[in-house]
Amino acid sequence: MNKQQLFENIKRKKSFLCVGLDTDIKKIPAHLLKEEDPIFAFNKAIIDATADLCIAYKPNLAFYESMGVKGWIAFEKTVNYIKENYPDQFIIADAKRGDIGNTSEMYARSFFDELNIDSVTVAPYMGEDSVKPFLIYPEKWVILLALTSNKGSHDFQLTEDVNGERLFEKVLKTSQQWASDEQMMYVVGATQGKMFLDIRKHVPNHFLLVPGVGAQGGSLEEVCKYGMNKMCGLIVNSSRGIIYADKTEKFAEEARKSAKAVQTEMEEQLKAIL
Amino acid sequence: MNKQQLFENIKRKKSFLCVGLDTDIKKIPAHLLKEEDPIFAFNKAIIDATADLCIAYKPNLAFYESMGVKGWIAFEKTVNYIKENYPDQFIIADAKRGDIGNTSEMYARSFFDELNIDSVTVAPYMGEDSVKPFLIYPEKWVILLALTSNKGSHDFQLTEDVNGERLFEKVLKTSQQWASDEQMMYVVGATQGKMFLDIRKHVPNHFLLVPGVGAQGGSLEEVCKYGMNKMCGLIVNSSRGIIYADKTEKFAEEARKSAKAVQTEMEEQLKAIL
Repeated sequence: MNKQQLFENIKRKKSFLCVGLDTDIKKIPAHLLKEEDPIFAFNKAIIDATADLCIAYKPNLAFYESMGVKGWIAFEKTVNYIKENYPDQFIIADAKRGDIGNTSEMYARSFFDELNIDSVTVAPYMGEDSVKPFLIYPEKWVILLALTSNKGSHDFQLTEDVNGERLFEKVLKTSQQWASDEQMMYVVGATQGKMFLDIRKHVPNHFLLVPGVGAQGGSLEEVCKYGMNKMCGLIVNSSRGIIYADKTEKFAEEARKSAKAVQTEMEEQLKAIL
Repeated sequence: MNKQQLFENIKRKKSFLCVGLDTDIKKIPAHLLKEEDPIFAFNKAIIDATADLCIAYKPNLAFYESMGVKGWIAFEKTVNYIKENYPDQFIIADAKRGDIGNTSEMYARSFFDELNIDSVTVAPYMGEDSVKPFLIYPEKWVILLALTSNKGSHDFQLTEDVNGERLFEKVLKTSQQWASDEQMMYVVGATQGKMFLDIRKHVPNHFLLVPGVGAQGGSLEEVCKYGMNKMCGLIVNSSRGIIYADKTEKFAEEARKSAKAVQTEMEEQLKAIL
């Protein structure tokens, strides 16, 4: 999917919501545990209940890997289900990978070639040759960690160099030499508030993947105020706030209500640019 | 496995070699492709041929994930095979993970609880809460990326802050507040040469996982000269140089010869401390 297509989806659906499929076997409704593949059954119900309200799904690999082979099967089934039934959805493999070139090539092959996923989150610590192998696939995206939503983001990402440039800024600047805003996005946590102004100085036109609204305490209004650009430029993720809205047999219905509430707020925010 | 046990294995085997199981279906001998699980068949043969010459195995997750479910099965079988047949081997899941606390917990559960692996490589970019969930498991290890072996290591890891401290040094210093040398190791590339002196100023007693000898061009002699401490303090990895030493039916035999050559050199180097 290219940038313009993504924007068209946002305009059509009046939403820039990404539903995070952080599916944990310990948190899904008990009645699903009798299904052959409870994780996939849960995801399918969540996807069917929310697909018209969101423009992206983000399965977090950790949740699938923690169940070994079964989890990996559920992950692949989920990706294929979205691709077949909702081909306009942008799929993000939240993997936070990054390794020497030789190895990053294998990850790229896995996510882009084998699974035909649209994008993968990548950690910048190992630099250019750890990111470049992901960039040889046309219309596939790298979403590079810049300024994350967690407390630990302060440990290293804000470190200033001799010129007063913070590490996340160096990541934004340096990585623009590797790819344009047609292939690269950045992760910026919703909890970072006014820091979006600093981010936008460096990457005015890029899309940002924004986790941290909901359970982590970020404000959608603030994110839009400081982070939105003329193509929206935001994909805001909510995971726990939507998928675990309810633990009964009505879980999908309640997930839809939560997603609808976020989408309504997004529709309001989009009036600024549409 | 604790630090003393690791050192005992090094003394007994006169080796601090880690064999990297970067097993690529496109690179293994053709005759194995008729096996039901070629990746596992390859790994099993390599392990049987090298186990007395090394103290650790390091499967790199990328290579297994790139084959989806089949790859994940081969990975689990490989780990279980080592655990059952060579319980003195230190197993490193080379995964370079790191995510918000909630997610890192899932990765820790996957590698330490489900698979009983000894250690996992973790990327530091997201800071403390991305690393801590791995540290609640006794005698399990985090191997944190510090100064990697690749060219891209220069992009961010060498960035100096206002006090002249480089990012990898800040990682070494800060992370020592999270765990001791009984639970934390660091990745330092063999290609970094004299930089080991700087590393040892910060972490004189820690074990270092050292990739980059062999295919990537690092020198074992130099690594030992600048990086060895009184408990050896080094786990030196070789992947391609050993496992792909030969592509015929003799591949395991040739892998053994390559491993033996490295082990012999290590035995010589260990004379400095034993």
